[in-house]
Amino acid sequence: MSFRYPNGKLYTAAKHAPSPRPTNRGNRGMRLEDDINDSISYYRNRKTAVIHKKPTPVQIVNVDYPARSRAKITEAYFRQASTTDYNGIYRGYHLDFEAKETRQKQSFPFKNFHDHQLNHLAAISDQGGCAFLILQFVESEEIFVIKADVFLQLKEESTRKSLQKSVIAAHSVSIKRTYTPPIDFLPAVDQLFF
Amino acid sequence: MSFRYPNGKLYTAAKHAPSPRPTNRGNRGMRLEDDINDSISYYRNRKTAVIHKKPTPVQIVNVDYPARSRAKITEAYFRQASTTDYNGIYRGYHLDFEAKETRQKQSFPFKNFHDHQLNHLAAISDQGGCAFLILQFVESEEIFVIKADVFLQLKEESTRKSLQKSVIAAHSVSIKRTYTPPIDFLPAVDQLFF
Repeated sequence: MSFRYPNGKLYTAAKHAPSPRPTNRGNRGMRLEDDINDSISYYRNRKTAVIHKKPTPVQIVNVDYPARSRAKITEAYFRQASTTDYNGIYRGYHLDFEAKETRQKQSFPFKNFHDHQLNHLAAISDQGGCAFLILQFVESEEIFVIKADVFLQLKEESTRKSLQKSVIAAHSVSIKRTYTPPIDFLPAVDQLFF
Repeated sequence: MSFRYPNGKLYTAAKHAPSPRPTNRGNRGMRLEDDINDSISYYRNRKTAVIHKKPTPVQIVNVDYPARSRAKITEAYFRQASTTDYNGIYRGYHLDFEAKETRQKQSFPFKNFHDHQLNHLAAISDQGGCAFLILQFVESEEIFVIKADVFLQLKEESTRKSLQKSVIAAHSVSIKRTYTPPIDFLPAVDQLFF
């Protein structure tokens, strides 16, 4: 089965399939999210950090209670989220971030970011939290971790519809994909915030 | 419309009705949650703290896309949450809490707390976060804010199936219902953690 989340992201049952992961382009889109989910689970198990992905917000309209089986939601709608997808605690600090990817090769389109996500990250930053973005260029497999306030400043100053990769690279920490965890972003957080 | 969440909590459309709120006992059960939601919204607007309630986790199985209308989820199931309902940032610190109420008059039953909630609060506490519980005795309208590690210690030491109100009162900060916000719990957090 497959369906699209309101953000246009494709959900496919395949993404929950065991390794080896499908490597065709259609599924590559979900790999960043999967790998981050695996990474935060690894961090939780090691007690390095407690970070969770927020559930997709859904407005429930009708629920059936079939005899001898669990409650079944038969009518519900996607709601607009008001925060980012990820938050938690690390070294006593509040972390909050969003992970995004693009198939563009040289720049990251601003349209990939929703206002509610950027406003939320700005609010977290203002409160003294560690707010950041994990940005992946799918084609080159490059991953950057950038502070939310730096990104917002660059977006503010930009006259384009996207942020050039060279600019991102100059203002962020680049990370490599590994195995345990797949995306080891906490050392980048150390470097950016501590 | 109304239905029950997996925790047995009754959802009624009435809880979203404008004031004056229904005051019959059946609806009183949702008042704590509503009032906390109003309070965190007040804190966000004032930029005192950024706290959000997490969406109810739902496993989506099927989605319809009726022509010219928004996506409709036609089959989904409640999933077990792995965290508490509320978290956020205040004075640069990570906050994480759960709100519970009981109709018992003299003690708070331990069965009101799920293992995943208590384990999560313990993990947050271990990471140096401010983990706590907001406990309401519905009949007397008394509300207490207690640190999660203190509560867990008292639970550990208890030979009963519930924690006596007098014990809770001796180890927590009592708060009064007000209007703006309805449950002003941050001063209690100041007192307990700072």
